[in-house]
Amino acid sequence: MTSGPQFISSRDNALLVRLRKLAQDPGAYRKLGAVWLEGDHLCEACVSRGVVPAQAVVSEAGWVDPRLQRLARAAPRIAVVADALFAQLSGLESPARLGFVLDHATEATAVQAGVATVVLDRLQDAGNVGSVLRSAAALGVAQVVALKGTAALWSSKVLRAGMGAHFALHLVESAEVGDLDALGVPLLATSSHAGLALAEGRLPSPCGWVLGHEGQGVGKALLARCSETRRIPQPGGQESLNVAAAAAICLYESLRQRGSA
Amino acid sequence: MTSGPQFISSRDNALLVRLRKLAQDPGAYRKLGAVWLEGDHLCEACVSRGVVPAQAVVSEAGWVDPRLQRLARAAPRIAVVADALFAQLSGLESPARLGFVLDHATEATAVQAGVATVVLDRLQDAGNVGSVLRSAAALGVAQVVALKGTAALWSSKVLRAGMGAHFALHLVESAEVGDLDALGVPLLATSSHAGLALAEGRLPSPCGWVLGHEGQGVGKALLARCSETRRIPQPGGQESLNVAAAAAICLYESLRQRGSA
Repeated sequence: MTSGPQFISSRDNALLVRLRKLAQDPGAYRKLGAVWLEGDHLCEACVSRGVVPAQAVVSEAGWVDPRLQRLARAAPRIAVVADALFAQLSGLESPARLGFVLDHATEATAVQAGVATVVLDRLQDAGNVGSVLRSAAALGVAQVVALKGTAALWSSKVLRAGMGAHFALHLVESAEVGDLDALGVPLLATSSHAGLALAEGRLPSPCGWVLGHEGQGVGKALLARCSETRRIPQPGGQESLNVAAAAAICLYESLRQRGSA
Repeated sequence: MTSGPQFISSRDNALLVRLRKLAQDPGAYRKLGAVWLEGDHLCEACVSRGVVPAQAVVSEAGWVDPRLQRLARAAPRIAVVADALFAQLSGLESPARLGFVLDHATEATAVQAGVATVVLDRLQDAGNVGSVLRSAAALGVAQVVALKGTAALWSSKVLRAGMGAHFALHLVESAEVGDLDALGVPLLATSSHAGLALAEGRLPSPCGWVLGHEGQGVGKALLARCSETRRIPQPGGQESLNVAAAAAICLYESLRQRGSA
């Protein structure tokens, strides 16, 4: 079904110009309606979840590797690109040899009701966001809703840190606090000092765990919508947890309580 | 007790040459016997734990801020550096205005026996290492032992991600697997698929949680020394957890079981 590959050796090729924009600007996918997915691990995760890429892009070195060639053939179109040009699309120290271009709808996806959810309230660090997505996918969360101001979910850095989790989750971006009305599950916030300890008393299930900005925490309007604040016990005193570590703990505790229900 | 500050406006000043090395090379502190601690948050964490810095370094802009000047006076020597020169010492997007130089003993610190410990087996990512240190300090761990091949604990990136946790922990670097004989607590490894689930049956306390290389996991020789492997339940299937997220979950579960003992 795949036609023969297109060979690209010119820096000015229109596809490469577009891909460089996608690779370099974390938010470009929103304008360009396409996501650049770099590396065979992410591309395999995408295919294994049944997502069909719009285009595969392979370096010349990658094209002679039977495994990568097979993976590339998951796409209806394949471009084989000179190694030096491919390297310009890479944010990695040792550049990947394969990437996919995914169509990305620019309109917002609607919030799903009644499912285990994580709400990201303006999380800034791409590594944190990716780690939270990864924990969410691993620990049985169905949906992640990112409020306006959160790091772009489909940027290269978040994709890399997410390790394929994007394809296991229902993702909503650029949401407003009011959009959470449609969730239909209780929202929970965390604190290092206030509220019932995480393991004291049952957590509602499903619920929506709210994770706030690394410096400022959860915004006031959103906090007012939370039905509870739960405390992660921290005997170490003044130290606090990284937000992705806190997320992992909350999601684990939700899971543990469900399992022992 | 603090003498008047030294004003530095030359790029070639010996202190600045040394600090640039420390700021730019993550492992330089081992050779130079000094650590560069950037930013008022980290410097405050250091002072609040009773650590006396060898030297404070303040930008001219920082020196006119009474709060920073007060913090700088925790050091017996103060250098005030032209803003543009200070910026060259910074790994931050918006450069800090204050830093400390800490004396750093180059000989290895001995492993402490009988305390809650985390063992890092060649963790590569500085952000992960810092996040693990932060979780360890917050969740009641006393000691972190980093085996040879782990990212340098006192590098700027790990310090930044650790958010002050370094000063709340007993840290051992460049350890060999054999050094763990002195720990005197059972070692536990994690798995996504093998062993008893984390919350099934009591965890030994205190124990040593072993965290492996991001790609390769825990080395064979070390795994052979672990008394148990515990499984973090992951209903999401093929997805796995970031190592710092897994660490947070294990340390939380240890703490939860201790609390309910």
